[in-house]
Amino acid sequence: MDIKFVKRDVLKEKPDQKNLGFGKYMTDYMFVMDWDQGIGWHDARIEPYGPIEINPSCVTLHYAQETFEGLKAYRTKDGRILLFRPEMNAKRMITSNERLCMPGFPEDMFVEAIEELVKVEKDWIPSEPETSLYIRPFVFATEASLGVHQAISYKFMVICCPVGAYYPEGINPVKILVEDELVRAVQGGTGFTKCGGNYAASILGQVRAEAKGCTQVLWLDGVNRKYVEEVGTMNIMFKINGEIYTAPIEGTVLPGVTRDSIIHILKDWGYKVNETHLSVDDLMKAGHDGTLEESFGTGTAAVISPVGEFVYKDDSVVVNDFKIGELTQRLYDYLTGIQWGNEEDKYGWTREVL
Amino acid sequence: MDIKFVKRDVLKEKPDQKNLGFGKYMTDYMFVMDWDQGIGWHDARIEPYGPIEINPSCVTLHYAQETFEGLKAYRTKDGRILLFRPEMNAKRMITSNERLCMPGFPEDMFVEAIEELVKVEKDWIPSEPETSLYIRPFVFATEASLGVHQAISYKFMVICCPVGAYYPEGINPVKILVEDELVRAVQGGTGFTKCGGNYAASILGQVRAEAKGCTQVLWLDGVNRKYVEEVGTMNIMFKINGEIYTAPIEGTVLPGVTRDSIIHILKDWGYKVNETHLSVDDLMKAGHDGTLEESFGTGTAAVISPVGEFVYKDDSVVVNDFKIGELTQRLYDYLTGIQWGNEEDKYGWTREVL
Ligand SMILES: Cc1ncc(COP(=O)(O)O)c(C=O)c1O
Ligand SMILES: Cc1ncc(COP(=O)(O)O)c(C=O)c1O
Repeated sequence: MDIKFVKRDVLKEKPDQKNLGFGKYMTDYMFVMDWDQGIGWHDARIEPYGPIEINPSCVTLHYAQETFEGLKAYRTKDGRILLFRPEMNAKRMITSNERLCMPGFPEDMFVEAIEELVKVEKDWIPSEPETSLYIRPFVFATEASLGVHQAISYKFMVICCPVGAYYPEGINPVKILVEDELVRAVQGGTGFTKCGGNYAASILGQVRAEAKGCTQVLWLDGVNRKYVEEVGTMNIMFKINGEIYTAPIEGTVLPGVTRDSIIHILKDWGYKVNETHLSVDDLMKAGHDGTLEESFGTGTAAVISPVGEFVYKDDSVVVNDFKIGELTQRLYDYLTGIQWGNEEDKYGWTREVL
Repeated sequence: MDIKFVKRDVLKEKPDQKNLGFGKYMTDYMFVMDWDQGIGWHDARIEPYGPIEINPSCVTLHYAQETFEGLKAYRTKDGRILLFRPEMNAKRMITSNERLCMPGFPEDMFVEAIEELVKVEKDWIPSEPETSLYIRPFVFATEASLGVHQAISYKFMVICCPVGAYYPEGINPVKILVEDELVRAVQGGTGFTKCGGNYAASILGQVRAEAKGCTQVLWLDGVNRKYVEEVGTMNIMFKINGEIYTAPIEGTVLPGVTRDSIIHILKDWGYKVNETHLSVDDLMKAGHDGTLEESFGTGTAAVISPVGEFVYKDDSVVVNDFKIGELTQRLYDYLTGIQWGNEEDKYGWTREVL
């Protein structure tokens, strides 16, 4: 791919690595590429990060024809830069775009765009423990036209920002509200994609959870409102009686890259992993009778996030005395070890950019 | 409300009223107003229609926190300008915004914004039969921040475009595909709102319908995939054995302004209207045994759109020999008569702007 580089005159000042937060500081550059019907993808460029112009009748502002991805670049102790399974994000974005009737692209193109931007922004990748560069690829319709239809022009962009440790004071278990009224996804819908509409629809659940003193929502299936699916921006796993349970990938749950990686590791460690429909009643029962040993969310942002408590209607169960479980900790250490290059990458998951 | 007016130097040339299409020509001006946390709505203005600047990390581009409305301004034979039940659109947008955790506003503010813009753009309202000015109010998050959350800043905008007769060659019945795999909405989701995500999710259904020679999709409920809900951008009604059937407003179907108006009229005309769950099997059966007398979609764009045929799996039924039904035609004539000021407005639905 031929990528034009448009230099900026003055680079931004880099923020304090101890105080990065999430998405507060965007880097100096962004990758941009256009798609037009009859032409395909064209005009790849890396240009100064800054506002874009959009027509008020742009399809995206009205009908949300938009998808995104999220991954990270990690700086190792010996100064190499690693990506973690970027081809998985490429595949998922291709799947998302198909569902949303948006243009696809070769996996290579997606990965190359990210690699080239990361190379340009290498000085933005922080070196403090557990910091990384968050990378946000996204595609959206740019056509200006008010009829509801498949748009004929799109933009693919990649932007990035340095991010701090997700839990600056060490990993803390989270309290999760099981949502019994609102629904995130249903078979035949868009739950398996990373399209904007899924997230807009989820905000109310998040707001309600916070009002009840919880930090996250656990969604139930949209048909029976009974089976556990996933958390706001994480897949979720349960260790019950020594075995692992997590929702299957059947159209409603996002196929998380972290989820897939953790399942590989767990199987290699000899755990039985049940990708099956676990009912919230069985979950609460396991919580009460003590067979629910651990639970954790999996996602790019926090990698592994232990669950300390589930609240469902008038009931609630505390998991492992609200402390991070042994297996949860071991998974966190091992997977982050691979990501930051401190563990041998026996699965071949990391990809060296520099 | 204090609205600042920013004049444009040169007005656009008005398009040929015989060839307006839908959404091809935007007018000279747009209404814009901002909302910020702690301040509320501020800086109402009518300014030249043109591109806006948006940050690449704007919440709307990633998480589709956006809602919209659609209504029309009609020019009567004696030159008055009418809106049709704009307070219904205001109410619906307030409901949409609540579900999407976006700021609400007083109904008056919504209606005033539209009235003021329509006054400025009065020369854009066409006078050819069945033409009108389509008005598109929309609200979207403007905050630049990548965390999934309720945004802290928004824009409310109103744009408009003259539109032609929906069926330039007279009303033609449409052929509709009953979609049995993809789902538009489910209880607990956002089906009752006009949020962007609903429409992005629906495009694939539309594309598939067109591939099968149909012009529209009829959606079934997301739980049983059995009960008839609504069409792409219309509610749908059936006349079976002299009675009217249409899906109830229970959280999945959009509460259409046209639907509500037609139900009022039908009841006044002595029809029994059943707002109930009609299964697709019962619909096809009624089609085959001849009790399905008429069917039509209702929506702002086409007002009333007769259905000529339903295709469901390997089955299909033709309605009323693919001709517009008597009641459908009578409803169309009467309601458009009120909207264009040719019928007495006994319901008080029209609102004179000028
Ligand atoms: C809804 C949802 N589920 C799960 C995940 C976890 O996916 P991944 O592990 O690829 O980050 C995410 C975040 O990306 C998400 O948004
Ligand atoms: C999904 C959907 N259903 C129904 C309608 C009809 O609503 P109204 O009669 O208010 O235009 C519309 C169009 O606005 C729509 O988008």
